[in-house]
Amino acid sequence: MRTVRDIGEFGLIRRLARLLPTSPDVFEGVGDDCAVVRLGDTVALVSCDLFLEHVHFRRSTATPEDIGWKAAAAALSDIAAMGGAPLYVLVSLACPGDTEIAFVEGLCQGLTAAAGQAGAVIVGGDTARSPEAIVLDVAVIGQTVGGRYLCRKGARPGDVLAVTGHVGRSAAGLHALEHGHDGPALLAAHRRPQPRYAEGRWLCRRDGVHAMIDISDGLVQDAGHLAEGEGLGMDIDPGRLVSAPELERYCEEHGLDALTFMLTGGEDYELACAIAPDVYDGTVRAFQETFDTALTGVGRFTDAWRGVRVAGQEPAAGGFDHFAR
Amino acid sequence: MRTVRDIGEFGLIRRLARLLPTSPDVFEGVGDDCAVVRLGDTVALVSCDLFLEHVHFRRSTATPEDIGWKAAAAALSDIAAMGGAPLYVLVSLACPGDTEIAFVEGLCQGLTAAAGQAGAVIVGGDTARSPEAIVLDVAVIGQTVGGRYLCRKGARPGDVLAVTGHVGRSAAGLHALEHGHDGPALLAAHRRPQPRYAEGRWLCRRDGVHAMIDISDGLVQDAGHLAEGEGLGMDIDPGRLVSAPELERYCEEHGLDALTFMLTGGEDYELACAIAPDVYDGTVRAFQETFDTALTGVGRFTDAWRGVRVAGQEPAAGGFDHFAR
Repeated sequence: MRTVRDIGEFGLIRRLARLLPTSPDVFEGVGDDCAVVRLGDTVALVSCDLFLEHVHFRRSTATPEDIGWKAAAAALSDIAAMGGAPLYVLVSLACPGDTEIAFVEGLCQGLTAAAGQAGAVIVGGDTARSPEAIVLDVAVIGQTVGGRYLCRKGARPGDVLAVTGHVGRSAAGLHALEHGHDGPALLAAHRRPQPRYAEGRWLCRRDGVHAMIDISDGLVQDAGHLAEGEGLGMDIDPGRLVSAPELERYCEEHGLDALTFMLTGGEDYELACAIAPDVYDGTVRAFQETFDTALTGVGRFTDAWRGVRVAGQEPAAGGFDHFAR
Repeated sequence: MRTVRDIGEFGLIRRLARLLPTSPDVFEGVGDDCAVVRLGDTVALVSCDLFLEHVHFRRSTATPEDIGWKAAAAALSDIAAMGGAPLYVLVSLACPGDTEIAFVEGLCQGLTAAAGQAGAVIVGGDTARSPEAIVLDVAVIGQTVGGRYLCRKGARPGDVLAVTGHVGRSAAGLHALEHGHDGPALLAAHRRPQPRYAEGRWLCRRDGVHAMIDISDGLVQDAGHLAEGEGLGMDIDPGRLVSAPELERYCEEHGLDALTFMLTGGEDYELACAIAPDVYDGTVRAFQETFDTALTGVGRFTDAWRGVRVAGQEPAAGGFDHFAR
C-alpha cells in the first residue's frame, strides 16, 4: 500500500483536490495560499495553517509567546500573499492536561499580538486535550480589497521574479539556535517573522504584477509554485540575491554559504511576485519609496523550460516537504 | 504552577477570552458555538473543531470515511446551532508519513460527504507530518439567513427547553462499540451523526425561539450553557425525555439506564433551544409538520436558582470536559 511519504505533501494535495466537488462561488480552491470565495457581496479569503510541536516548534527553544506569534504569522501571511486584508482568526489548541495555564496564556498573547499587527482579531476556536504534543491550527478569514487578489497562477514568460526584503534569515536563525550560536537579528527573524501585509496589498493593486506567493518553504520551492502555476520555467540569478548584512556576517563567521540559506531557507514570509518587465523599474522605485524595504528582481520566468533553475542549473534540493523526512 | 486540568476546558476558555481584544465588527466572539462577524454586507459565522486520534476517535473502531464524516459534522453542526447556512470548509490534517494514501482518501470522502449534505464545499486546508497520531481540524465558514442568528444567550425565565429528535443514541453506540454489542442503529448514530441544518435555520426564523445550542457534550451540560448564558436555572423533567426505540431496547437488553445516556451522552448533534411558553405549542406543531422529527419540551428555565437540575435535584455528573480526564 502506498503511503503519503511516497507521494509527498504536494502529491497528496493534488490527489485529494481531485476528490473535491467545486462550486461557482469558489473562485480559487485547493492549491493556492488561500481559498477565494464569494460571501454575500464580498470576495473573502480563507486559509488555515497547522503548527505542531516537534514538527514546527520545540518548547525547549521557543517561548510560548514566540510560538503563538509564529503560528499566527504563518497563517496570516497567506492572506498577505493574495493581497488581501486579514480580519478574523480562529485558533484550535490541543494540549496535555498538565500544560501550565501560564504557558497557554503566553501562546494566546503571541497569537493576539501577531493578529493585532495584521489588523485582525481572534474571534473563536476550539480546545481539546492532546495525549502528549501541543497542536495549534490557525484559521484566518480575510477579504480582498476592491475584489482584487493575486494567485500563484498568472506569471507570464519574460516576467521578472521579484522578492521583498531579505530571505534566508529565519533559516539562519534556526541554525544559530540549533548550534548555540549568537545572532540576535537572525534569531528574531526566526522567532518573530513579519509578514508583508501592507506590501502585499500594495503589490496587488499595482498593474503588471501578475502572481504572488509568500516564501514559507524556501525561495526555490515557492517561486517554483509560481512557475508551475502557468507551466513555465524560471531562472534565478544568484548574483542578484542580496544577503541581509546579519546573514552575511553570520555565514562568514561560521564558514557557511549564505546563498544556500537564501535559496532554500523557509519561514521568512517575504513575498515573491511576477512583474511584467515593462513596469518592473517603476514598480520597484515606487515600492521602495513607499515601504523603505527592498523589492529585488532575482530571476525571470520563461517558456523555454519548466521548473526552477539557478544560474541555468537545476538545483539539487528544493524546500520543505512535510512528508519527505 | 496551575495547569489547564485544574481549571478545565471552560475555565481555560473564559480565562483566554479575557486576553482578547474585540472589534465592533465582531457581534459574538469566544464563548458561543460560532463567532458571528461582519464581512462586507454579510453577517458571517465562523467556527472550528478539533478531531484527534486517541481522544475523539480510534482507527481500530472507525473507518476513515466515518472519521472524516464525524469531524466535519461536528464542525458543521456549530453553524446549524446558530441557525445559519454552512458554505465553506477548511480541513487541516496532520498524519504520520507512513499513513496509507487510501486512508487519507477515505477521510477526504467522509469529510466531503458530510460537507455536501450540509450544502458546503471543502475549499482548502493544510497538511503536515505528525509524529504519531492523526490530527484533524475542521473550520467552517457560513452565513446567517437574513442577518438572524441564535446564541447561547437569550433564554428567559419561563421559557421551555425543547430538544429535536432523540438524544443519547451516539453515546449508546459508543458503549456498544466498546463492549462488542450489537446495535446497528446506535452504531450508525455514533459513526454518522446527522446535524440539524434545516431545523436550525427554521427555528432561527421562528418568533419566540430565544436561544439555541447543539448537543455535543450532553444534554445537561449543553442545556446548562443556555441557562448560564442568562444567569438562569433550569429544571429538566426526565419523564418528558422520550427514548429512541433502539436506545430503549439496547438498555433493556444490557441492563442499562437509558436516562443516563439521554442526560449525559454527547455527540448526537441534536439542537436544544429556549422557546417562549406562549408560542411553544404552535412551534412544536409546525416543526413536526415540517420535519417529521420530534421537537420535545423537556425542561423549563427559571430565575429561582442557577444551574441545571433534573427533577429538582442537582445532577452528579455533567458532560464532557476535555481536560477533566
